[in-house]
Amino acid sequence: MPTPPAPTLRAAILGATGAVGQTFVRLLAGHPQFEVVSLVASERSAGKPYREAARWLQAEPLDERIGGLVVEGVDAAPDADVVFSGLDASVAGDVEADWARRGYAVVSNARNWRLDPAVPLLIPEVNPDHLALVDRQDWGGAAGGFVVTNPNCSTVGLALALKPLHDAFGVDAVHVVTMQALSGAGYPGVPALDALGNVVPFIAGEEEKLAVETRKILGTLGAAGVADAEITVSAQCHRVPVVDGHLEAVSVRLREPAGAADVAEALRSWRGPLAGLGLPTAPPRPLAVFDDDASPQPRTHVNLGGGMTVSVGRVQDCPVLGVKFVVLSHNTVRGAAGGAVLNAELLAHEGRLAGAVA
Amino acid sequence: MPTPPAPTLRAAILGATGAVGQTFVRLLAGHPQFEVVSLVASERSAGKPYREAARWLQAEPLDERIGGLVVEGVDAAPDADVVFSGLDASVAGDVEADWARRGYAVVSNARNWRLDPAVPLLIPEVNPDHLALVDRQDWGGAAGGFVVTNPNCSTVGLALALKPLHDAFGVDAVHVVTMQALSGAGYPGVPALDALGNVVPFIAGEEEKLAVETRKILGTLGAAGVADAEITVSAQCHRVPVVDGHLEAVSVRLREPAGAADVAEALRSWRGPLAGLGLPTAPPRPLAVFDDDASPQPRTHVNLGGGMTVSVGRVQDCPVLGVKFVVLSHNTVRGAAGGAVLNAELLAHEGRLAGAVA
Amino acid sequence: MPTPPAPTLRAAILGATGAVGQTFVRLLAGHPQFEVVSLVASERSAGKPYREAARWLQAEPLDERIGGLVVEGVDAAPDADVVFSGLDASVAGDVEADWARRGYAVVSNARNWRLDPAVPLLIPEVNPDHLALVDRQDWGGAAGGFVVTNPNCSTVGLALALKPLHDAFGVDAVHVVTMQALSGAGYPGVPALDALGNVVPFIAGEEEKLAVETRKILGTLGAAGVADAEITVSAQCHRVPVVDGHLEAVSVRLREPAGAADVAEALRSWRGPLAGLGLPTAPPRPLAVFDDDASPQPRTHVNLGGGMTVSVGRVQDCPVLGVKFVVLSHNTVRGAAGGAVLNAELLAHEGRLAGAVA
Amino acid sequence: MPTPPAPTLRAAILGATGAVGQTFVRLLAGHPQFEVVSLVASERSAGKPYREAARWLQAEPLDERIGGLVVEGVDAAPDADVVFSGLDASVAGDVEADWARRGYAVVSNARNWRLDPAVPLLIPEVNPDHLALVDRQDWGGAAGGFVVTNPNCSTVGLALALKPLHDAFGVDAVHVVTMQALSGAGYPGVPALDALGNVVPFIAGEEEKLAVETRKILGTLGAAGVADAEITVSAQCHRVPVVDGHLEAVSVRLREPAGAADVAEALRSWRGPLAGLGLPTAPPRPLAVFDDDASPQPRTHVNLGGGMTVSVGRVQDCPVLGVKFVVLSHNTVRGAAGGAVLNAELLAHEGRLAGAVA
Repeated sequence: MPTPPAPTLRAAILGATGAVGQTFVRLLAGHPQFEVVSLVASERSAGKPYREAARWLQAEPLDERIGGLVVEGVDAAPDADVVFSGLDASVAGDVEADWARRGYAVVSNARNWRLDPAVPLLIPEVNPDHLALVDRQDWGGAAGGFVVTNPNCSTVGLALALKPLHDAFGVDAVHVVTMQALSGAGYPGVPALDALGNVVPFIAGEEEKLAVETRKILGTLGAAGVADAEITVSAQCHRVPVVDGHLEAVSVRLREPAGAADVAEALRSWRGPLAGLGLPTAPPRPLAVFDDDASPQPRTHVNLGGGMTVSVGRVQDCPVLGVKFVVLSHNTVRGAAGGAVLNAELLAHEGRLAGAVA
Repeated sequence: MPTPPAPTLRAAILGATGAVGQTFVRLLAGHPQFEVVSLVASERSAGKPYREAARWLQAEPLDERIGGLVVEGVDAAPDADVVFSGLDASVAGDVEADWARRGYAVVSNARNWRLDPAVPLLIPEVNPDHLALVDRQDWGGAAGGFVVTNPNCSTVGLALALKPLHDAFGVDAVHVVTMQALSGAGYPGVPALDALGNVVPFIAGEEEKLAVETRKILGTLGAAGVADAEITVSAQCHRVPVVDGHLEAVSVRLREPAGAADVAEALRSWRGPLAGLGLPTAPPRPLAVFDDDASPQPRTHVNLGGGMTVSVGRVQDCPVLGVKFVVLSHNTVRGAAGGAVLNAELLAHEGRLAGAVA
Repeated sequence: MPTPPAPTLRAAILGATGAVGQTFVRLLAGHPQFEVVSLVASERSAGKPYREAARWLQAEPLDERIGGLVVEGVDAAPDADVVFSGLDASVAGDVEADWARRGYAVVSNARNWRLDPAVPLLIPEVNPDHLALVDRQDWGGAAGGFVVTNPNCSTVGLALALKPLHDAFGVDAVHVVTMQALSGAGYPGVPALDALGNVVPFIAGEEEKLAVETRKILGTLGAAGVADAEITVSAQCHRVPVVDGHLEAVSVRLREPAGAADVAEALRSWRGPLAGLGLPTAPPRPLAVFDDDASPQPRTHVNLGGGMTVSVGRVQDCPVLGVKFVVLSHNTVRGAAGGAVLNAELLAHEGRLAGAVA
Repeated sequence: MPTPPAPTLRAAILGATGAVGQTFVRLLAGHPQFEVVSLVASERSAGKPYREAARWLQAEPLDERIGGLVVEGVDAAPDADVVFSGLDASVAGDVEADWARRGYAVVSNARNWRLDPAVPLLIPEVNPDHLALVDRQDWGGAAGGFVVTNPNCSTVGLALALKPLHDAFGVDAVHVVTMQALSGAGYPGVPALDALGNVVPFIAGEEEKLAVETRKILGTLGAAGVADAEITVSAQCHRVPVVDGHLEAVSVRLREPAGAADVAEALRSWRGPLAGLGLPTAPPRPLAVFDDDASPQPRTHVNLGGGMTVSVGRVQDCPVLGVKFVVLSHNTVRGAAGGAVLNAELLAHEGRLAGAVA
């Protein structure tokens, strides 16, 4: 395995006090490549030490050094090689554009720019070539600024599981029913009375995102940009009383005939394009495939690979669509901050971060 | 509305101390037609007053009179016009056969006889004509004994929602993903550590039952018995941390073209064959259809119609199969004891209970 | 049992769309004495039918007639014999004073006036004589207006359990640790991520209320008003992931010697002053005392007596303070709207409601 | 910090497939001192690779090497310097005695020998001197065998929090109300229907253990053995729907006057006798003391110090007993397997493990 690069890239975090921002802080504490040098939040938090500005909600204690950093406002201009954005969608569009205009490499978890034709919607193991889109970005400001995004938390597990099948057999149609964790709604998020002992059969915008994002991620990059994959996606989304871990019941109609055993084998043998690159956040294998009836479950499998492994189980023939299975992914790690960190690691690996800011 | 019959039918309960048996006790306390006169359980409980033999788990207090009844063993021969069976499947097959042989009208919630060609698998609003099957039963003993069954708790909501669509448009294929409540596993049932904050993507036998039972219930009674409906069913079953109420995400391919609006209207206008009969346990309307995004939910809708109303919501076009929606039903009422009581009410209405035992 | 009065008292509800207001609506639908004639809420809701103005969160369906009432603003002047207030404490103080000033009989669940020397803090079974305080109220407006309050949801179970002990043995000191349900925080209330699989060891203001209110309720009405009971109270309050039902672990130091058996007997034999009055919301007996180890529990006992019975169990000697036990009460029924309805029934019984408004 | 000893001690685990045994496996994987060489379980499991014999329930994946070890029966005679026992109490008494008789150093989590006068009931930070008791053990067999125990999961947090107070002010009486996690009941343990949205006010034997064990742990070792501390303890124990983490509401009457501020300072400044010894499982500080209202909570603090730190918060004056606070400890780590591992590390530090078996 190649030696990982030295921890010499300086990182800022936008929206550092929120739920996603806190996960960035947790994941980057002790990261071998990125050093958090700047925490940016609303004016209300600016000027305070981070440990006072943020109501720390992570199960692991806050890193001492980062806790002592003084929070800055959105007009800050830190000397940063990469800027992670955990901003809320209500402000992310403008703020991220501004930072890109000022020449920063913005690696965003927000949804605002995901569908922009020049912005990569990236899962490093699935469509690393889409990263080349950043060369087409022009924010009308300093050179070198760009925005890269990761998918919605419910899309990433699905897209990762579909990738080997799309490559091997071609995916024609996907039916997905999600059972999504509470942390996906942020904090304060879902009222406890709606969550405890209940299922809510609706998450605003989620069913659309699953369709649109999956088609872009599995699409083909050409001269005219990304041509969406021609996959019909139907989604029904539910909120369930689970803290972390989106479980999805997926049925797939393939273009070429394949049974459950073929599909299981295709999933099991897949390594993905990051194998051997040594990216610190990449799990040993992107997919774990289970044979037993009881797996995967949020309680026992959500933290596999540090939350970056996507688990697949119960691969069966589907008499209606062809094949069916369940997928579990960690929505705040693989599906949010961890996915963004892996995006940044790929950017670093491709040499796209050094000197992004003049 | 016709006056309900006087409370003159005597009822026994087999497996009275278990979870289903307790629900029978709760639902029959104060029932206008049926009076509980005999409680039957294992030898361990026999001879004790019911209130001591049963560890009462219902949220409503135990009826005083019933609590004082002395539990009998399975060899009891009560003077009963109807016998409700909440027996566990491990013993229900033999015991129910024995009681039918002895001339009793057995209304069972157990799965053992559901698929027998001569046994009705009955939802009174869906296939009341199947009740005529009992005339073909011959248990080799006293005249008049028979067994009638209700479907598995996950089947009943699905079958009720499909019935108006099958009548109006023809159902070709069904894809159903269930999110099933803990009470469906009985007591002690699911270990808390598997339930709290978790989803288990497997329930033994459940996916098969959903397919097989749905086809029988929606099948056609002819001279040769019930011809299964030609509907392809694919099910993925999950246990979620909900106390009562199975939620199911359903997608349907219809034989005749129909959009979401047509389907919603067909569901909404459907009254079913019990309308106007005045059966005490029948809800005013078997189906409640919701327009808003947030309905139905177990917490707010499971008790509609005393737990006998099946709720449908989020009716949408499905780009893969045609139309999709969610269905909620109360698994221990409509899906178990309440369904059986309604079966008995239909039997009484058709004059099939009086004098069942010589 | 005396025949309950005819349903001839007209009722208004302030704050009708909120969580407490909805519980008032649910409990008053079909009430034999009170008929809801007016629903008052914020200007945002005024003018809309109640079924549109309120996001109905109760597990039972909304009464059809009440659902059709048009919501009024706080300046409404309905012809009402009694006004139930489910207002939030942020506005209840001024609004309730204004309605009392205008001559209305205000029966409030809000905390604002509870500690006012002229306002009864009432549990009808505990301190019905305190009701006489209303004769001392002067709101500077129309004659006959007054405010009556019920205690905080965590106080009522404690005070009810202490009453027989205070009468029989004298209570010197009380140590109480609460495990309080989520519904006590209203809606949206507690964020799901703080609730699921967690305990929060703090509820703002709750520990103080338990002490101050208990002393007033168990106090003695004299010429100078209510003299607080001389009871030392220490409370530690926790939020637990339960929907309804506050459980409290109580230890008591009595003035006269008494063991667990004496205390259990005092609790068990107590009937309270409402016995035989036939108030519709009063449970047959205010206290239910359990002998077995596993009772009471929120799941199985919270709805006893329609949620108005307070359950006591695990009565044991306490080597530190003398005697200990647990108390369970339904926080949104006995501890909120149901308690207020019972207060109004006592007012009606004493002839204090008819013609309250000229 | 002294260099930890080399990883040269060989460890066996009794009851390796159960919930406690699995936690031992998890905690010892990668331990710098102990190498798991033998896994012992029931005859049913013997002969199978551990990964097949155990239904792995931990949230972290099973160590590859340990998963491949073949499980042995209880008559095994491994070459082990230390034997961790996660046996169930139903068998632990005899089996542990047998292993001690055969000369093994048994470090047990079971309750069977805890109260034996010659067996240390050990919390290394609280009563390390009690370890000398092992010299008085005579199991009538091979030399050098002994049994050391750790306290019940609900005792350890309480005893750790009381220790600094007992040293500084003398503890006279303790009132403790526990809110205990589901994992404390093992697997399958509590039925989900008893756990979800519920509190059970009883845990068999727990209230007694809290009293008796606390007095022994805080007792004084003399020539005649351990003289129990003269502390009156009253406990009320509850099961709450939390996965890991026992929260306890504690009130204390001290012998010397001290207010909340004094108590908080005594807790905060306490380091304990392990400070500086470098035991691998010992947290930096045994107690973490919080000032804010909302801490500690199971969700955010249970894993502090790898689950070995005990958290204290809400230190307040108690008008009844003097001072009160809440304590949180991880019941399966600090309160079970982790506590036992720390016991073994202390044994190793004192040179009591090498060559235990001839």
